[in-house]
Amino acid sequence: MEDGLVAAMRAALARAADVHGTTSPNPPVGCAVLDASGQVVGVGGTQPPGGPHAEVMALRAAGERAKGGTAVVTLEPCAHHGRTPPCTDALLAAGVARVVYAVGDPNPVAAGGAEVLAAAGVRVEGGLLAEEAQRGALRAWLHRQRTGRPHVTWKYAASLDGRVAAADGTSRWISSATSRAEVHDLRTRIDAIVVGRGTVLADDPALTARDASGALLDRQPLRVVVGTGDLPPAAKVLDDTAPTLHLRTRDPREVLAALDERGAVDVLLEGGPTLAGAFAEAGAVDRVLAYIAPVLLGGGPVALGASGVSTITEAHRMVVEQVTMCGPDVRVSAVPAAEQ
Amino acid sequence: MEDGLVAAMRAALARAADVHGTTSPNPPVGCAVLDASGQVVGVGGTQPPGGPHAEVMALRAAGERAKGGTAVVTLEPCAHHGRTPPCTDALLAAGVARVVYAVGDPNPVAAGGAEVLAAAGVRVEGGLLAEEAQRGALRAWLHRQRTGRPHVTWKYAASLDGRVAAADGTSRWISSATSRAEVHDLRTRIDAIVVGRGTVLADDPALTARDASGALLDRQPLRVVVGTGDLPPAAKVLDDTAPTLHLRTRDPREVLAALDERGAVDVLLEGGPTLAGAFAEAGAVDRVLAYIAPVLLGGGPVALGASGVSTITEAHRMVVEQVTMCGPDVRVSAVPAAEQ
Repeated sequence: MEDGLVAAMRAALARAADVHGTTSPNPPVGCAVLDASGQVVGVGGTQPPGGPHAEVMALRAAGERAKGGTAVVTLEPCAHHGRTPPCTDALLAAGVARVVYAVGDPNPVAAGGAEVLAAAGVRVEGGLLAEEAQRGALRAWLHRQRTGRPHVTWKYAASLDGRVAAADGTSRWISSATSRAEVHDLRTRIDAIVVGRGTVLADDPALTARDASGALLDRQPLRVVVGTGDLPPAAKVLDDTAPTLHLRTRDPREVLAALDERGAVDVLLEGGPTLAGAFAEAGAVDRVLAYIAPVLLGGGPVALGASGVSTITEAHRMVVEQVTMCGPDVRVSAVPAAEQ
Repeated sequence: MEDGLVAAMRAALARAADVHGTTSPNPPVGCAVLDASGQVVGVGGTQPPGGPHAEVMALRAAGERAKGGTAVVTLEPCAHHGRTPPCTDALLAAGVARVVYAVGDPNPVAAGGAEVLAAAGVRVEGGLLAEEAQRGALRAWLHRQRTGRPHVTWKYAASLDGRVAAADGTSRWISSATSRAEVHDLRTRIDAIVVGRGTVLADDPALTARDASGALLDRQPLRVVVGTGDLPPAAKVLDDTAPTLHLRTRDPREVLAALDERGAVDVLLEGGPTLAGAFAEAGAVDRVLAYIAPVLLGGGPVALGASGVSTITEAHRMVVEQVTMCGPDVRVSAVPAAEQ
């Protein structure tokens, strides 16, 4: 049975990953329901805002078989009325005997689900695969709960010697097709993609999520261009493939406040060096995702511009949380040392 | 018995790694001798030039027990008279029945050992753990056999955003104590360490191999400073802790020819950006060893200067052969794509 719980939590985490990018400002949660014998009889993920939460989706799939069973959830079930009724009500109505969750809900309004369930006689345990859940689909949402602003992943692709383009400005392609495909997939799972106006003027990127053939993927993030000047009317970011927001500021705090207002939780910062430097200086880079290609250039722009560091002791210290190969490239994920 | 051969080859490879850095211009070879029952009865490594080769060392350790046994060697035994008699003679004199080696000897003068042994009735097989042997202690020596010049490893430590120092030039320390200790250990296993005169003027490095307390390690590489101008008489590289060579050229080919003349096989290029760029442009970087620290700087010099690349299609393409963590840092080893 306990092995079964871990397997069920992995199924719940996988479903959470599936809905990641479609739930903001709500958390992307996954739930698996086991019947009394320990068989998985329903899996569900949080639906877009206004729709049912993960627990309700999983309970619907399980039907009568949830009675006396166990609900395995990536986040502590909510106990409050928002746009939908509390998940604790649904779990009690279904007659679930046990609830196992990964991460406690830090939201003071929604929290307390564990208490409500325990008071009603349900056996409740938290912490199962909590670290995986925190680093996975819930990362950005938990960050916003903790800090009051969206989570920022600064993503860049550079040569081994740290350049994001060659001396003449060409950069297609430094990183591999595998890495680029991964980034396009990532774009479908975040709420907003942010670039500086300079990047629009220099590269005219579409900032859409596309497959290898160039066809649009099912979900597109909000495209955000940051900078005080106007954008060229013919810029690709102004086409009708996805919504675009032009923020006439370069202050990271103002950018994040504006995105927060629009319900963005998970933000991908894609460039260029000046904007990335401003975000790093503001302490607003919550994760660095670097695709390092095994290429030497020896000239051209580097990934990060002035970030408020003049001497080595002022460096922004990070901690590597994961290094993997992405095709031929090295993919490094790092987070601020202070947040470890 | 065949499992025993693999274990014996690993012992031979480990011994080869131990003598790596002490044998140039001869190859750092390891040998394990098994008795007729398959027990390891002797292990040896190549001694400094003029001293016995690995096979002789291992046979001495094995004594009579080598008779009817197997010699497991990281490199095909030599069949020629150099400063020492041919190893094939020693193997035949010891009555070894079988010889298993990792890598064939590409040296047209010394090669033919396998043939000589087979003609004398010894069972000879090559190729066991050949890739490990080629990437290990033998790498530089094999490179020199193939190309006629020393093997160059360009080593640098940079921030995640590709800087080798902060805006004010400070760089102590970007990489971790673990990475720095590994580099000092590496310095004991190479023949020469090369920097540009600019690095001497800017940083006044000692270029010695030291332990964490600053004490000199047992072996010191030749220190090589490249550049046409004079060196400050008080420069640390001119102290008496290790020999130093000042080459009044910045042409990588001339540098490598001068080092080759002095019997250097394995060269470590440590900086700075201008010299590294010149080596990359000359196609004289045979391996990149990058210690990437999880630090963001956003200013300061980058690792590689002009390397003859003006547009992305001219980039020096590499292949990552290994990525590991070195303490908190990411260590990337890459080789030119063409040599894969």
